[in-house]
Amino acid sequence: MQNPIEHLIKVLSRLPGVGARSARRMALHLLKNRDNLMLPVAEAMLAAARSVQSCEHCGNLDIVSPCHICTDARRDASQICVLEDVSDLWALERGRIYNGHYHILGGTLSAIDGRGPEQLRIGDLLARIKANNVHEIILATNATVEGQMTAYYITERLTGMSVKVTRLAQGIPLGGELDYLDEGTLGAALKQRQSFET
Amino acid sequence: MQNPIEHLIKVLSRLPGVGARSARRMALHLLKNRDNLMLPVAEAMLAAARSVQSCEHCGNLDIVSPCHICTDARRDASQICVLEDVSDLWALERGRIYNGHYHILGGTLSAIDGRGPEQLRIGDLLARIKANNVHEIILATNATVEGQMTAYYITERLTGMSVKVTRLAQGIPLGGELDYLDEGTLGAALKQRQSFET
Repeated sequence: MQNPIEHLIKVLSRLPGVGARSARRMALHLLKNRDNLMLPVAEAMLAAARSVQSCEHCGNLDIVSPCHICTDARRDASQICVLEDVSDLWALERGRIYNGHYHILGGTLSAIDGRGPEQLRIGDLLARIKANNVHEIILATNATVEGQMTAYYITERLTGMSVKVTRLAQGIPLGGELDYLDEGTLGAALKQRQSFET
Repeated sequence: MQNPIEHLIKVLSRLPGVGARSARRMALHLLKNRDNLMLPVAEAMLAAARSVQSCEHCGNLDIVSPCHICTDARRDASQICVLEDVSDLWALERGRIYNGHYHILGGTLSAIDGRGPEQLRIGDLLARIKANNVHEIILATNATVEGQMTAYYITERLTGMSVKVTRLAQGIPLGGELDYLDEGTLGAALKQRQSFET
């Protein structure tokens, strides 16, 4: 049986963004704060492992399925925002800027990682559109090559369905300084320039 | 009752070096790797919380007290290396460069944080020296103002006891480039220069 301190350090170093050094620091901090940190963290993990599940409709993580977003009557079920990951849903929800439904793909198409359409929840998305009265699909995958490729692929699959397909505007981020932006962003912002309204 | 995902993010953000953003990332990664990461981490924490304790002699963390270093007959009990924290002990043990015993102070004297001698394990150190046949005390507190102040304080307390008191050499670190070193380090290295032996 391995020493429990060494074992703790080893498993902590498998957390994202945690290397050997920060795992040691974390383990020592946890051992020194057993009752007010280590046990609460362990219990929070066990509670989450017991209760959290994927929403059968949108793929969101919640303690109920369908999730609280899918069952919220105040939200617009005719709009579905398509995202790569639950973290993107959290980002949009933090902003309180969107009041429709979501659909989590669970990643992007990727030739390198060998991820094809069947690994993503694209079939589920098409089924949701067919079964419900959906008017608009907002493709909000990341503005990366793979994210955009995935969005184009979904657009093709949606051809012939009577649903409006939109995507997030590309352009200069709020507070962005032109000097620090890449040429791709500047080019897109120039190409899609809007009339100046006051 | 709070949502278990939000609660998990909240407690994770209390770990050292983990902010709100990395706590979210960590929580999502844990939720996606429930069986091969979240449960093992939680169990490692519970196992460590159950079994790890402070050594009654040196203050090291181990599953037994006295710890495996204090009871190792192959180690030299006449040498005690005085350290601020368990992480310093781990650093020395990783190097396999020291074969004596240790004594963990549990911090430094600090006027700002209101830490006096009675908050550190200095009394225990004096008791160990009196009770055992200790020949040398190596003061290996950090080379910070507070670390050095603590070392000086302990030296004073040891006055009159028949024990040799040493401290770690100060100088240029291995691979150190003069141009990048501070003047304090350069000054100490020059003052304590050694004869060139081949």
